[in-house]
Amino acid sequence: MSEDQELGITERKEYSPGEWYAEVVEKAELASYGPEGMGGFIVTRPRGYALWEAVQENLDDWFDETGVDNAYFPLFIPEDYLEREKDVVEGFDPEVAWVAQGGREELEERLAVRPTSESIIAPYMARWVRSHRDLPLRLNQWCSVVRWEATDTKPFFRTKEFLWQEGHTAHESTEEAWEETLTRLDQYQRLYEEVFAMPVMRGAKPEHDTFPGADTTTTVEALMPDGKSVQGATSHHLGQSFAAAFDITFADEDEREQTAYTTSWGVSWRALGALVMTHSDDQGLVLPPTVAPEQVVIVPIWQDETKADVLQYATEAAAELEAAGVRVHLDDREGRNPGFKFNEWELKGVPLRLEIGPHEVDDAEVTAVHRPDGTEETTPRETLVEDVEAHLDAVFETLYAAAEETLAENVREADSPEEIMGTIGQHGGYVRTPWCGDEACERAIKEKVHAEIVAVPLDESDTDDHRDSAHRAEAIHEAGDACTVCGEPATETAYFARSY
Amino acid sequence: MSEDQELGITERKEYSPGEWYAEVVEKAELASYGPEGMGGFIVTRPRGYALWEAVQENLDDWFDETGVDNAYFPLFIPEDYLEREKDVVEGFDPEVAWVAQGGREELEERLAVRPTSESIIAPYMARWVRSHRDLPLRLNQWCSVVRWEATDTKPFFRTKEFLWQEGHTAHESTEEAWEETLTRLDQYQRLYEEVFAMPVMRGAKPEHDTFPGADTTTTVEALMPDGKSVQGATSHHLGQSFAAAFDITFADEDEREQTAYTTSWGVSWRALGALVMTHSDDQGLVLPPTVAPEQVVIVPIWQDETKADVLQYATEAAAELEAAGVRVHLDDREGRNPGFKFNEWELKGVPLRLEIGPHEVDDAEVTAVHRPDGTEETTPRETLVEDVEAHLDAVFETLYAAAEETLAENVREADSPEEIMGTIGQHGGYVRTPWCGDEACERAIKEKVHAEIVAVPLDESDTDDHRDSAHRAEAIHEAGDACTVCGEPATETAYFARSY
Repeated sequence: MSEDQELGITERKEYSPGEWYAEVVEKAELASYGPEGMGGFIVTRPRGYALWEAVQENLDDWFDETGVDNAYFPLFIPEDYLEREKDVVEGFDPEVAWVAQGGREELEERLAVRPTSESIIAPYMARWVRSHRDLPLRLNQWCSVVRWEATDTKPFFRTKEFLWQEGHTAHESTEEAWEETLTRLDQYQRLYEEVFAMPVMRGAKPEHDTFPGADTTTTVEALMPDGKSVQGATSHHLGQSFAAAFDITFADEDEREQTAYTTSWGVSWRALGALVMTHSDDQGLVLPPTVAPEQVVIVPIWQDETKADVLQYATEAAAELEAAGVRVHLDDREGRNPGFKFNEWELKGVPLRLEIGPHEVDDAEVTAVHRPDGTEETTPRETLVEDVEAHLDAVFETLYAAAEETLAENVREADSPEEIMGTIGQHGGYVRTPWCGDEACERAIKEKVHAEIVAVPLDESDTDDHRDSAHRAEAIHEAGDACTVCGEPATETAYFARSY
Repeated sequence: MSEDQELGITERKEYSPGEWYAEVVEKAELASYGPEGMGGFIVTRPRGYALWEAVQENLDDWFDETGVDNAYFPLFIPEDYLEREKDVVEGFDPEVAWVAQGGREELEERLAVRPTSESIIAPYMARWVRSHRDLPLRLNQWCSVVRWEATDTKPFFRTKEFLWQEGHTAHESTEEAWEETLTRLDQYQRLYEEVFAMPVMRGAKPEHDTFPGADTTTTVEALMPDGKSVQGATSHHLGQSFAAAFDITFADEDEREQTAYTTSWGVSWRALGALVMTHSDDQGLVLPPTVAPEQVVIVPIWQDETKADVLQYATEAAAELEAAGVRVHLDDREGRNPGFKFNEWELKGVPLRLEIGPHEVDDAEVTAVHRPDGTEETTPRETLVEDVEAHLDAVFETLYAAAEETLAENVREADSPEEIMGTIGQHGGYVRTPWCGDEACERAIKEKVHAEIVAVPLDESDTDDHRDSAHRAEAIHEAGDACTVCGEPATETAYFARSY
């Protein structure tokens, strides 16, 4: 324990969310800033990396169940490969890190550190796909990417290097590619809702804001407590643009050459930033039990004469929980009083604290305290395992319910440009309003309040029940409605928000 | 299935091991060469990456059990950090890829793409370690590293970018650091022996060949069928050199400042190259069931009139195996005859093939064929699961026994420099011989036959039983023996071999 870690959080989430966030990340030991001279880079410490591993484990399971294979492509991309991508997608001009020297040798052609891997993966997909029997082809890689864009650093949210996964698939038909796009969006939504206890809103990006080269970009948007929206993950239907440019073609059942349809989809460690920001509070980190490295901490409370009994009781309780698969830590450190330990584990976001002192030993009980709201309950020692599991579920529900309430309260409507801007200025959150589909109307708002259209409703008319039950950007415009900004006929419902 | 994959292996392992290896890697779909102009880079395809995931899963479990936390440090290292490492370790002069431009901006200081992360991890360890209570500190990261050294590319064995894990730890005492070094060496040995079915020889590198800055470099060496030794993984006791240079100090129990002892240890995807080269044959890839993406392939053999029965029987067998946790694939493709399927799955290294035709259905049996040696046995349908598990164990044992025999037969002794050189020239393998400890005597041999001292015995006098049972470089020199090369008194036993 170093000295600066002994101090609690000094900033307040409500008044200085940026500083508060940075302090939580640092003091809960999730990440540190990179070396001097390396602005934009962070060091992901074990407690932060464990959260990323939870993302990986969940998604890898789901990817595996749905036919995705992991692979690994080179870190570097030759400059002319990136140039080729520029031809495909107007406006693609990534700010990348360039390697021009290897050892003592000047390279003949510069290599880009991958900013995303479409341009190096697509040519291999073209080689591997010959016949319809080779489709669908579904590849994913977990890797780091570098984009020389970030100016100020915000750990996980805004870094020059970040960890992510990028999935790339090829299909026989546009319907299959569309199904794939939505399967991944479902999995991202599930990650947020079932693992992170964060309801998200699914939708599409407006056409002018799709991924360069994509037909449709779908997104899950998460509302942060400061009223801004985070693009939580995206899944792109790329149509045939990449396949045509990179020759991803196949012989169909009649031996005719066809161009494939492709998709790509990804989630980055920005998801961890959204997780931390959503649930945490002025005491520090708050995590749902689904991802917490320790779900339960046991703090024994003893005097000299009760120490042996208390420790034995606590040790047995810890062993029983561990045997039942609970991630439990017994904090039996000497030289730290219980109050110090309470604060430390609150700061680090352990969802459930069990207090065991002489009273608990005498009465064959355990006192359980929920991290998010301090709910305290004594529970019989006999039913410890099942009660702890119920407490963990309850903590998850508490977090989810709070986030859901925030989301529900923060979707508002507006009847004029002034109202859009006023509502966003005053409350943040989403303003949904009829829109003509013209980017100029977004620009008019953006220039004044930095709010943009973060989502429009996604047409999922063929979707199954699971999807129907999900949070989604819903259309409210009707035939005859006018665009709230320009008054022309509305064709869409726009969700305006300030965005990370 | 692309056309070139339909062809089997054309090279012979015995006569052209290099070409044979490259062909197996390509045709078994483990890896492809990188884009034109990117010599030294490979694309790791799903079947290759699955092997790396098996390495990760096993080591992560063992690391976790022994107190190691995963973390992630930046991909880039500032030039002056690397310079600082040069001060610590004479002769450290890595050939690295340099980033000098980010976006449109020339960087003030060049950044190296990490060739290894000591120099960026150590300063953070120094910040995080304040007191003896912060020790031991054990960090590991899975990442890719780049070294601009490779000239010709040999997938997994020799690539400019490679995947690895690097562990970095700090301890209170040299004894603890030594214990740590051996714990990791044990785990690497276990990886090879229990997961890869490859006996390895554990030892130390001679002093002149330790990792720059290390006190002792320990190694597990694997003998390849072509008679060369592969350094399979290394674990370094770094003494206090890194800790002193990077200020990794701590207050001991009496509040006195002490310098820590550090270790580092790593295994790269070269391990996959050694795995492929050891077991595979002229039919293609051979894998132990422990790592094979599919452990069992079921090939149904039908005529029109028997198809329905055969497929139903095969489907039920597959379902039963899958429910028992066996990784099984039912190859029910139309338009491919059984012989084609046999060849394909042999090429891809599936350890056990189950053939199911009308005879098997009638007699309530299954025919099982072992990949490595063609052992064929019919087994009653009733006991399928337990018999398959026994077959898989038998395949593992067959592979292990063959590799062990090769190792045992290829440790020879020699009484003169000519005999060292002659034995290595004729047989390859290891020549063990008394040695004075002087690098010049190694050089004399190296210049003539490219053989070097790949290991010397490791002093593990305090080791436990597990370690005692392991393969190891054993001392054969006695007091009074003379160095076989120069005739001076011998102080060591050297293991000479040609090396990858």
